[in-house]
Amino acid sequence: MAKHTPELILTGLELDKNSKRPMYWQLYDGLRQNILTGMLRAGQRLPASREFSTMLGVSRSTVLLAMDHLLSEGYIIGKTGSGTFISNELPEKFLYTSSIKNSNESHDLNAELSKRGKQISKIEISTTPMPEAIRAFQPGLPAIREFPHNIWSRIVTRCLRMISTPNLGYGESIGYFPLREAIANHIRVARAVKCEPEQIIIVNGSQQALDLTARILADPEDIAWIEDPGYLGAKAAFSGNGIKTIPVPVDHEGLNVTAGKKAAPKARIAYITPSHQYPLGVTMSLPRRLQILDWANNNNAWILEDDYDSEYRYGGNPLSSLQGLDENNRVIYLGTFSKVMFPALRLGYIVVPPGLVEVFLRAKSMSDRHNAMIEQLALAEFIANGDFARHIRKMRILYHERQQTLIFYAQKHLKGALHLDPSNAGLHSVGWLTNQKNDKLVSEKARELGVIAPAISAYCMAAKVPSGLSLGYAPFTESEIKTGIELLANIL
Amino acid sequence: MAKHTPELILTGLELDKNSKRPMYWQLYDGLRQNILTGMLRAGQRLPASREFSTMLGVSRSTVLLAMDHLLSEGYIIGKTGSGTFISNELPEKFLYTSSIKNSNESHDLNAELSKRGKQISKIEISTTPMPEAIRAFQPGLPAIREFPHNIWSRIVTRCLRMISTPNLGYGESIGYFPLREAIANHIRVARAVKCEPEQIIIVNGSQQALDLTARILADPEDIAWIEDPGYLGAKAAFSGNGIKTIPVPVDHEGLNVTAGKKAAPKARIAYITPSHQYPLGVTMSLPRRLQILDWANNNNAWILEDDYDSEYRYGGNPLSSLQGLDENNRVIYLGTFSKVMFPALRLGYIVVPPGLVEVFLRAKSMSDRHNAMIEQLALAEFIANGDFARHIRKMRILYHERQQTLIFYAQKHLKGALHLDPSNAGLHSVGWLTNQKNDKLVSEKARELGVIAPAISAYCMAAKVPSGLSLGYAPFTESEIKTGIELLANIL
Repeated sequence: MAKHTPELILTGLELDKNSKRPMYWQLYDGLRQNILTGMLRAGQRLPASREFSTMLGVSRSTVLLAMDHLLSEGYIIGKTGSGTFISNELPEKFLYTSSIKNSNESHDLNAELSKRGKQISKIEISTTPMPEAIRAFQPGLPAIREFPHNIWSRIVTRCLRMISTPNLGYGESIGYFPLREAIANHIRVARAVKCEPEQIIIVNGSQQALDLTARILADPEDIAWIEDPGYLGAKAAFSGNGIKTIPVPVDHEGLNVTAGKKAAPKARIAYITPSHQYPLGVTMSLPRRLQILDWANNNNAWILEDDYDSEYRYGGNPLSSLQGLDENNRVIYLGTFSKVMFPALRLGYIVVPPGLVEVFLRAKSMSDRHNAMIEQLALAEFIANGDFARHIRKMRILYHERQQTLIFYAQKHLKGALHLDPSNAGLHSVGWLTNQKNDKLVSEKARELGVIAPAISAYCMAAKVPSGLSLGYAPFTESEIKTGIELLANIL
Repeated sequence: MAKHTPELILTGLELDKNSKRPMYWQLYDGLRQNILTGMLRAGQRLPASREFSTMLGVSRSTVLLAMDHLLSEGYIIGKTGSGTFISNELPEKFLYTSSIKNSNESHDLNAELSKRGKQISKIEISTTPMPEAIRAFQPGLPAIREFPHNIWSRIVTRCLRMISTPNLGYGESIGYFPLREAIANHIRVARAVKCEPEQIIIVNGSQQALDLTARILADPEDIAWIEDPGYLGAKAAFSGNGIKTIPVPVDHEGLNVTAGKKAAPKARIAYITPSHQYPLGVTMSLPRRLQILDWANNNNAWILEDDYDSEYRYGGNPLSSLQGLDENNRVIYLGTFSKVMFPALRLGYIVVPPGLVEVFLRAKSMSDRHNAMIEQLALAEFIANGDFARHIRKMRILYHERQQTLIFYAQKHLKGALHLDPSNAGLHSVGWLTNQKNDKLVSEKARELGVIAPAISAYCMAAKVPSGLSLGYAPFTESEIKTGIELLANIL
């Protein structure tokens, strides 16, 4: 027997025959740990495998497997004829640091981010989930509880059962063709969008549409017009990509194009919600639509039309899209299924001029290759079946009723304190505060009582708008709306 | 009756009572079309609603609904006491353009992209789906046909049935906690990754991990080391984000750190696949691992460890991760479920040092808010159930057999022409061509015969490596492998 055997002290090497972890694995772990903590030093010779197996009371094949592995990783080296040794190439500092966790952060890692990483770390964006219970008057949500979940589950289950092998592999970056076809048919009729399925790119909700579009169409330091008050998720996508946002005021005709032209005539992008302005609920007038198309065309600027909830229109037809009016390929149309299906589905789409399909396709592939397939298969079927149209029709009636319920209780309990404009589209209304000047304070007090009612001023960048609250009604029952209003009445 | 009535000529106004499209909608469409094509001119007076309804043979409420809508969009204006007129504010040019499609692209829209948009339009990246039939020896794919799809479907269906309302709404950007917990438990044991669930961010496959990491950690013109030959999807993510890639040669010990330091000592990022180099299949040696960690630590550089297929190891243990050796928070660990589950699932994860969680979270929220929920719920259960570990164990045996089958037939039919190294990990092996110098030509000829065998030189940027083919074996049956080799034998 070789001399060194008695000197070999292995700490913490407890091999447990009853463990699920194979013996060779346990041995490998123990030896590696001993090397890294310095119990086994560089250059030290290990016992021969036969000797080792006797010493540890394990089979020789267990020892050989563990040694093989340490050898392949370079912890030990084998010298022909003279045995196996701990590698000399382990730098000293690794040998005594033991199992310190990664959480050893003596310095601020954020200081080492890229410039754009630092910008991203400063953006204002929600990263938290909804509260366990959805409470009145949380805006921006559809009636999730009324979604025909049984129908949807049946379709998903059928798609899972029938899925073909290619649909489990890597798919088309642009999205599943039958879904794009179904979307094209839907938005051509319902939104007067001029498009072929070939112009539609499937994305993970409108936030990804914004992130891709921002990068493709504008560089850092370029300017984007953004509605003020407006959707902060869009602002975040621009800011996080280094694009300067210029707030442009909104009035009863929508974004004030003249003000935008004055503030930043050479902006590259105008981000607007012409069908149902977020959060004010205004519809952009035709003259303004023509004015912004004209500006974009003269300046080679791009209009991002975010048509997030216009399927729900209660007065007359759904308004036709701005994209449908555009004759010069200046409009990028963003749609989402978060409001007509449910947010956790994470499906949206971009309609781009034919000449831009290729670059959007590459951008999508570069950012995440393509969307998950099962949702795409199921949604294509849900639309083709007519379930989608049926759901929209039902919800349109329900939401209209719920808006009227909201107005009814607001008039009953908050007359004189809160003025609710009937809104002819969407999932929320603005309640203007007639006595209270500080809407943020009201919103805070409401939250303390368990009522969600974001202040309109919270959506403002530079704009001064009257004091008001954004009140979602779509997901709430009459009793929830009634209770919410009664609680608000305690404050107002 | 007013004088103007006979003058009103409405073209194409065919109202169909049997159409599903409501009458008021048909009327609105027709009038709008007439305004836009100039059949109805600016300033022209419309008949009174009663008169109009008689004229068209529709109810007065139909006329009023259509008019209301045109009024709200600004196509017509109402003057008190004098009737309704076509708006004057329609610029002339809109009046005669009719229904020209958006495809009118006289100039190249790509010239108007942002600088980064132009970069994106040039990246080399796959945007196409897999062919209908997966053919030998397509690399980079697991055995999709062997995936326990019935078990997976059952779990998805159960999750759909049990899903709670909050899980249908907007979720956590960082991902579903039980899934992050399951991943942490898995990679701690299987990959020796040091992590808590709090450090794990769920993303859409490793491509999104690359896109987010590139943006957060490097600015345009910064440098990233990239393995040469290497994974082109990573190169695309860097290039598309303006980051310069410096190809660093790979030898039998993995990336040559000394060569990297010589070429670009101040690189911000090193992208490596240390467990199983893509495409060469080499495992990075311990000295190299320590050398790259040391370089990163001295230069405040970041290492992106892409551990894409290391669950499948046939000789000894799975190798432990580079991240597990790092004591200075320099490693970002990227994992994917594309190879252990199936690619269309689009689920991956990033393990970051605790100090970087916040910025990654914001970046994820900014780019697409969060991943779809149903896959996250189902995968958490699939892992917790033990189904995941069982699947890996089964596949490990199957893939090992298939690799041996590949070697067997290669030796039988291609002895002397193709030398196959047994690979101790992953889903593919490299077949070195002993007689043929031009692997791209061989690959092309193979494709003509219906055999997929990408040339190793196709993964090269500046490197000169021997002529070889990347041969995936994981998804193929013995007969597919045999046929593939026999077809290759016709060429070699």
